[in-house]
Amino acid sequence: MKSYRKELWFETTKRRQLINITSDVEGCLAESKITEGLVLVNAMHITASVFINDDEGGLHNDFEVWLEGLAPEKPYDRYQHNGFEDNADAHLKRTIMGREAVVAVSGGRLDLGPWEQVFYGEFDGKRKKRVLVKIIGE
Amino acid sequence: MKSYRKELWFETTKRRQLINITSDVEGCLAESKITEGLVLVNAMHITASVFINDDEGGLHNDFEVWLEGLAPEKPYDRYQHNGFEDNADAHLKRTIMGREAVVAVSGGRLDLGPWEQVFYGEFDGKRKKRVLVKIIGE
Amino acid sequence: MKSYRKELWFETTKRRQLINITSDVEGCLAESKITEGLVLVNAMHITASVFINDDEGGLHNDFEVWLEGLAPEKPYDRYQHNGFEDNADAHLKRTIMGREAVVAVSGGRLDLGPWEQVFYGEFDGKRKKRVLVKIIGE
Repeated sequence: MKSYRKELWFETTKRRQLINITSDVEGCLAESKITEGLVLVNAMHITASVFINDDEGGLHNDFEVWLEGLAPEKPYDRYQHNGFEDNADAHLKRTIMGREAVVAVSGGRLDLGPWEQVFYGEFDGKRKKRVLVKIIGE
Repeated sequence: MKSYRKELWFETTKRRQLINITSDVEGCLAESKITEGLVLVNAMHITASVFINDDEGGLHNDFEVWLEGLAPEKPYDRYQHNGFEDNADAHLKRTIMGREAVVAVSGGRLDLGPWEQVFYGEFDGKRKKRVLVKIIGE
Repeated sequence: MKSYRKELWFETTKRRQLINITSDVEGCLAESKITEGLVLVNAMHITASVFINDDEGGLHNDFEVWLEGLAPEKPYDRYQHNGFEDNADAHLKRTIMGREAVVAVSGGRLDLGPWEQVFYGEFDGKRKKRVLVKIIGE
């Protein structure tokens, strides 16, 4: 069994931002020389997400509006977590979007459906944060 | 390490429908001859879900009502994604329900708890769509 | 390839409770002697969750309030599932929080970010329930 590990670093310019990282993960897979196995891609921070969905701007705007409805950023004092911090909403938003994606590796490629793209979802950005890519297989 | 891959195809008669696919996944596992490892089961489409829960009709009705409350289908123009399409709600519903399930394989069997059943959750159906089953182990 | 399996048992004193199980999972990893691979940690019951987030009491209170807002426990008859049972809300809450976490194993350690902690989330407790820890790798 082979294994591979890499950290991808991000620093968004906005508090909330979605970044398509599919080609970064494909780059990791090529480096790993693994052709059959599983890739785990996970946010290493608890106010960010890795998820799979469509790379369509309208939908990304819908996600923003929808998540703000389900877990509003403000007023900050609506959350007990917001004593020294102001990011409780980001913990909740990331819970909806998910921490991780597990993707099959088949024939040396990410085994994704026709519209599946891997995203980093940042909900408390403007600072350096990491995603872990771990691949096992052979 | 062994690996196995199979696509399961579904075409639901309704826009939204939940299908118990546990026996399909068990069939894949038997075919794979893998006795220790992990199974990844994921929707290959971004308006569908694979999730694990109870096979109980009342609960499935509760899911339908609950998801419609959290991410209503209509009016279609409430979502920016709905220019050429009308399925933004399906993208959001699938996000709540999850894209994938990872299940342990132990002693040649799906290592599920007493009431755990694997479901395909369709949120924009009436057309052919796929689920990927990938098994690695030995 | 090596594999390892263990069940962790919990019996909470309250209907809803969050328990930090990171050190339990680390204990499993040490027992397994696996140094590179993946750990799957999943609730074996469909009214409980395994998720990764922050071990901060204010945030845990925010989760409680937020989940009660999204999927209220009462009145029990708001859910069709609640004929013989009263736990439909627990099925929905666990859906939001997720069934499982997959964590990388690197250099013999759980490959977690700085604040990532693994939790058992109980939403219908006061009885014995299980979490599965499955590790594969070498």
